[in-house]
Amino acid sequence: MSQPHPLSGLTADEINRARDVVLRLHPGTVIDFRSIFLLEPPKAEVVPFLALEHAGKVTASTPRPARLAQAWYDVIGGSQAAEYHESVIDVGAAKRVGHKVVPTEHHAGLTVFEFKKLLECVKTSPLFQEKLKAFRLPPGFELVVEPWPYGAPDTTDGNTRLFQCLCFARNTASGKDSNFYSYPIPLIPVMDYWKNEVVRVDEPATGGGSDPLVGRPKNAAIVDHCKPAEYVPELVRTRTDVKPLTVVQPQGPSFTVSDSSLIEWQKWRMRVSFNPREGAVLHDIRYDGREVLYRLSISDMTVPYADPRTPYHRKQAFDFGDGGLGHAVNNLKLGCDCLGVIKYLDGVLTTDDGSAQTSKNVICIHEQDNGINWKHTDWRTGRATVTRRRELVVQFIITLANYEYIFAFKFDQAAGIVVEARATGIVSVVNIDEGKTAPWGNVVGPGALAQNHQHIFCVRVDPAVDGHRNTLVQEDSLPVAMNERTSPHGNFYEVRKTPIATSCGLDLAPFSNRVFKVQNQAKRNPVSGRPVGYKITAPPTQLLLADPRSVQAQRALFAKHHLWVTKFKDDELYAGGRHTLQSRLEVGGVADAAARGEDVLDDDIVIWSVFGLTHNPRVEDWPVMPVEMLQVHITPSDFFTENPSIDVPSNADIGSRNVTDGCCEGKATEKSRL
Amino acid sequence: MSQPHPLSGLTADEINRARDVVLRLHPGTVIDFRSIFLLEPPKAEVVPFLALEHAGKVTASTPRPARLAQAWYDVIGGSQAAEYHESVIDVGAAKRVGHKVVPTEHHAGLTVFEFKKLLECVKTSPLFQEKLKAFRLPPGFELVVEPWPYGAPDTTDGNTRLFQCLCFARNTASGKDSNFYSYPIPLIPVMDYWKNEVVRVDEPATGGGSDPLVGRPKNAAIVDHCKPAEYVPELVRTRTDVKPLTVVQPQGPSFTVSDSSLIEWQKWRMRVSFNPREGAVLHDIRYDGREVLYRLSISDMTVPYADPRTPYHRKQAFDFGDGGLGHAVNNLKLGCDCLGVIKYLDGVLTTDDGSAQTSKNVICIHEQDNGINWKHTDWRTGRATVTRRRELVVQFIITLANYEYIFAFKFDQAAGIVVEARATGIVSVVNIDEGKTAPWGNVVGPGALAQNHQHIFCVRVDPAVDGHRNTLVQEDSLPVAMNERTSPHGNFYEVRKTPIATSCGLDLAPFSNRVFKVQNQAKRNPVSGRPVGYKITAPPTQLLLADPRSVQAQRALFAKHHLWVTKFKDDELYAGGRHTLQSRLEVGGVADAAARGEDVLDDDIVIWSVFGLTHNPRVEDWPVMPVEMLQVHITPSDFFTENPSIDVPSNADIGSRNVTDGCCEGKATEKSRL
Repeated sequence: MSQPHPLSGLTADEINRARDVVLRLHPGTVIDFRSIFLLEPPKAEVVPFLALEHAGKVTASTPRPARLAQAWYDVIGGSQAAEYHESVIDVGAAKRVGHKVVPTEHHAGLTVFEFKKLLECVKTSPLFQEKLKAFRLPPGFELVVEPWPYGAPDTTDGNTRLFQCLCFARNTASGKDSNFYSYPIPLIPVMDYWKNEVVRVDEPATGGGSDPLVGRPKNAAIVDHCKPAEYVPELVRTRTDVKPLTVVQPQGPSFTVSDSSLIEWQKWRMRVSFNPREGAVLHDIRYDGREVLYRLSISDMTVPYADPRTPYHRKQAFDFGDGGLGHAVNNLKLGCDCLGVIKYLDGVLTTDDGSAQTSKNVICIHEQDNGINWKHTDWRTGRATVTRRRELVVQFIITLANYEYIFAFKFDQAAGIVVEARATGIVSVVNIDEGKTAPWGNVVGPGALAQNHQHIFCVRVDPAVDGHRNTLVQEDSLPVAMNERTSPHGNFYEVRKTPIATSCGLDLAPFSNRVFKVQNQAKRNPVSGRPVGYKITAPPTQLLLADPRSVQAQRALFAKHHLWVTKFKDDELYAGGRHTLQSRLEVGGVADAAARGEDVLDDDIVIWSVFGLTHNPRVEDWPVMPVEMLQVHITPSDFFTENPSIDVPSNADIGSRNVTDGCCEGKATEKSRL
Repeated sequence: MSQPHPLSGLTADEINRARDVVLRLHPGTVIDFRSIFLLEPPKAEVVPFLALEHAGKVTASTPRPARLAQAWYDVIGGSQAAEYHESVIDVGAAKRVGHKVVPTEHHAGLTVFEFKKLLECVKTSPLFQEKLKAFRLPPGFELVVEPWPYGAPDTTDGNTRLFQCLCFARNTASGKDSNFYSYPIPLIPVMDYWKNEVVRVDEPATGGGSDPLVGRPKNAAIVDHCKPAEYVPELVRTRTDVKPLTVVQPQGPSFTVSDSSLIEWQKWRMRVSFNPREGAVLHDIRYDGREVLYRLSISDMTVPYADPRTPYHRKQAFDFGDGGLGHAVNNLKLGCDCLGVIKYLDGVLTTDDGSAQTSKNVICIHEQDNGINWKHTDWRTGRATVTRRRELVVQFIITLANYEYIFAFKFDQAAGIVVEARATGIVSVVNIDEGKTAPWGNVVGPGALAQNHQHIFCVRVDPAVDGHRNTLVQEDSLPVAMNERTSPHGNFYEVRKTPIATSCGLDLAPFSNRVFKVQNQAKRNPVSGRPVGYKITAPPTQLLLADPRSVQAQRALFAKHHLWVTKFKDDELYAGGRHTLQSRLEVGGVADAAARGEDVLDDDIVIWSVFGLTHNPRVEDWPVMPVEMLQVHITPSDFFTENPSIDVPSNADIGSRNVTDGCCEGKATEKSRL
């Protein structure tokens, strides 16, 4: 079997070998593995390899970067409950090449096995059981405990490892798929993980906007005013008039996946990998043989909630950094998550004993049609030329407790890339007394208050626009007052270009049509004479609203600017920092990277694009919300010498039908109406 | 045959009857008809009719609003060259019920027959021929003259009717579909239409940014440095690896079209009409029997160019108002402009003798899949419920000389509406000397300077949110400084709601997450207690850049705010005013409507949503640009008591295939790689 590509994720075999090395290094102790996955090789080693690869000169004897595994694990016992270690294992040499014991102010990402312990601990906690007695659930209702990270901790919480849970009740009469979120119980048990004990049960107020921020609920029949809010089809009366719409690709897809990670489609060529921190990651993205991006990933996100009442300020998830992404990834199913001819890729995760575990269908790849790509009709002759916009989609979906995110990287034939995030799932609700309303949320179902919150995403773009020496240029379109010399008629406007010299955070300015371009200033477009480039267009959305002094804001410094430019550094991948779980301050994130104040003119740079959604829920978001979509566009700008899709054939689609063409035989009633 | 619905466009028969009435009223004169189309009946008459219609109580004897035709025509001869008349004809009674002679400072919209005269006039003009002699075209090249409105006139131009033309050369050796835009000739003939004469030939400079704004080109071989830029497939080497992707609907579409204009689909019910000023217009839009919008249309758009050199400030089109839309609409073709099962609707236009003329397939209606609509997985059980996002698309496409716009109204199953504009076609270029560049445009092909410009659109939304008494509410999400009383942890933010009391123009504020909602404040959502409403979310884009004192700005006052709210007034439909052709000032547009300062609280209001594209062309836009997309979202916000699409079935699509499922037989080479 051939050797894995340097950018391919670790194989099961490689993970198991790394595990063995770690176990040998810690004899006589208990090791709880959190994760083992590829530490990508240094760019300085990868770039020459890629040069050989694209020149077709890689052989079995070509020198390759070492295959490195980052192994994250707890060493149990000793002077403290546990120590969290991060080791780097050279898998080929079967030896450790890096090691640190992470200081206790940083927390390892959470794992599935911790959630299991957490649920067990809460359910058996005398303290929690005592608190629960204050409430009377209707007959047939059972408790459901939902684990959450202990976001935005207070100073008094110290450095111990804490988890919290939200509580709900399920009507067992409606079966195991009945939506329990519509019956929220106002108890938030807090577990000290090292003590393996519920150390506190927070009892949030259930009043409205005119009630005090603090105050225990007085009504024992706490969910009696709540109502069912079902969504699984067997509990809903589904509509019956949606007729099938199918995508057929009789000759198969236009893409190929080979060498386990190499995708080729419509002049695009790239590698895809999967890791438990970022999900699907794309590498070495080229169009028609020319380098565009070295790496493209969803770097981070944070979801702070705005209910001011204690302890809801601790509802702040970092759904990538907090640790659960790998096991939160959906195993996709044919015909549900995409249409047409689909290629699924598996991911390799790890269990708590460090063994590799294959997760099926974590990435799907397919093509889709997205309407017209370009069209022109010569009105003199009536000759219309029209091409469709075919897209290649690389998608993954994650479920974080109540909520889901659908992430897609879309490539088009005009050499554009779209990074899309769709938010769906069940909005997080808490109990609210009957008849009350609140300014920090909306009553989306009886007794169910959906709290206002934000989702702030960061997409990391490591560009390679015709090579690795790139410059970020800010371009504004600015009005010019009418003047005899430059704008005698008042119609001229200035396009002002500002190359960014030093690493920093920048903001969007849509009313100045601010555009950010990554250019290779050493290479000019032969037609326009301007530097070749790609522009990065993110939606100009609201940034983090929390007071800058708040823990919510301090631990999400990445969310205070729309775009950051930093100098490339190996393994600097996570906008919110390496350790977001229970953090009080963003450390080692993009704000720190930018603060180095490095020269980023004509250098190896990284762009971090920040955008988000201020989500003040509407009733229509309940019980499962229709997708909200956000897109970042990465588009060539004077990179090519013409529309790269001008050569897309314009032949009519063979499968289209007129409604009168006899396609509806056997449906005479509809046909006669049409 | 049944009587036409009051909101249906005029039939051919009705148009011909209106023509006859006009001709009888103007005996002994020559009438050049410009347009005859429905004058929609007063809302006060339509609303009671719709109430009966929806109650199923319309009979043959139900009183109906009069069928009114607005007839626009020139009366030739008499004291001046021609008088422009606008009459209103009661078609049923065969009599005129309204009439005015439009003052000469306003111009009627242009027509196809005027363009024919213009081209003839230019080609035979001695003045133009003389100027043309200064240039030497390569052998086999022929002149192509492209008519343009005479936008943004100077004060000295007076009120006579003027047209201008851009000139190009076509290489006849490449056939009649060869792209002549790549050979621009710097001559702009100006025709006085009433004199039927080219009165001036403007000779724009062809230099670069460092050259004077004025100066005749000196090089006789003016297009010798230009190069071919073909796009029709027989002149391009098209790629061969795009495999077919077909949409199949074996049971036909889920929608019906009946009574010539009634569309029903997935609880939506609406009327569609077509008119030569706005294209496709939607009326009486209801979801599940509840009124949402009374009328939805593309109201106006303007495209000002930013090249400061005379006479390029006059490149400013109003592609709807200037008159050509009806005949600019594309006659759509199966399999090119949409996939799947398609219903086409014809439009009825008029010829210059006032006769009705059917234009085939001006609107297409079809369904499409747009990915996942909602999904939730219970991580405890692994149960995933996922529904697709099916959309109904009502689309029309217009070609204005070099450029095209694709407009689509999209309806989804979650009761949302998206109004989409896609800009494509050929960017407008002018000649530039070899080796030169300019700050007001980009050299997209040798000798072809694509000038910077904007496209500012206005979508008119006439809401009927559970009735006609509606209120516009501006909602901002605003930071709150940490304070003990309302935000002890600093995570609270305020959602500030500001009902708009008086008609006015308003602006977006994306960094405050500004949202505009149309609410019926007399009706509360039974779940949330908040007024039922729909929100209107437009992209927060740059407004018009031209100096406010410039003619470009003065004639497009609608483009100075993102959103206007006015009190409804019958036949007040056009944001840029009734007469945009050659206008110097927006008259009777939305700015005037807002300036009435009317009370718009709890009243019959109209929302005008303005958004646009500052288009500084890139080389990739040449020769035909890939679509740029802009979308306005009209989304329920506490209108329903749950997600309206929660009842969409989640069964898997029957046609999806794994790439390994044997779908690729006969394509062994691809299959083996996958």
